[in-house]
Amino acid sequence: MLELNFKKSPDSLIPAIAQDAATGEVLMLAYINEESWRKTIETGKAHYWSRSRNKLWLKGESSGHVQLVKEILVDCDEDTVVFKVEQLGGAACHTGHKSCFYRRVQGDELHIQGEPIFDPAKVYG
Amino acid sequence: MLELNFKKSPDSLIPAIAQDAATGEVLMLAYINEESWRKTIETGKAHYWSRSRNKLWLKGESSGHVQLVKEILVDCDEDTVVFKVEQLGGAACHTGHKSCFYRRVQGDELHIQGEPIFDPAKVYG
Repeated sequence: MLELNFKKSPDSLIPAIAQDAATGEVLMLAYINEESWRKTIETGKAHYWSRSRNKLWLKGESSGHVQLVKEILVDCDEDTVVFKVEQLGGAACHTGHKSCFYRRVQGDELHIQGEPIFDPAKVYG
Repeated sequence: MLELNFKKSPDSLIPAIAQDAATGEVLMLAYINEESWRKTIETGKAHYWSRSRNKLWLKGESSGHVQLVKEILVDCDEDTVVFKVEQLGGAACHTGHKSCFYRRVQGDELHIQGEPIFDPAKVYG
């Protein structure tokens, strides 16, 4: 399996950017370690490392909104990757928005763009 | 100025994704601290924190290939941002490639996509 530069970070986690394979929209950023990298390659589904729960995280494991990885890009110093994905359920963010980056900076405020695609209370119970 | 969640990381650095404002291509990922965030907002030019040189980094300070920030997106937990930029000089990567993510995973290998836009030896001397 292809080696990444996990050692570059003190916690051996490197960022993975999930990008909509069809539109190019950046959906989210999460972190991967060697285990999540291997699982992603093996299964074709995006696996991250949850920093809050400190465990392997198959994106969509509770919502069913799995990310099917269509292509993986690696940066020049091999310490960041891009997962080009098909986002099942249509939304990557736990708020129900398509992208976690659903707010734009306007002066000193954040302006919400677009409407949530799902109701988090229904999806996460 | 808008507050970000710098404290989430042990080193108080959070990732900033630079994305081509026109095409949506992800150009690079670097880190920002409070100072680089403030400088970016004030000047409209992307400023990062160089982890290798441990100093404020105006992207393009040596190459002239500055990033003009057209729009800033903030994620749901305010610990990652997207800078939508116009990349002067046409390339963000120190290798001369437009994007730092110029290699695609193919099995156990990295396949280079596209040609460099500039010759790093000429630009960096």
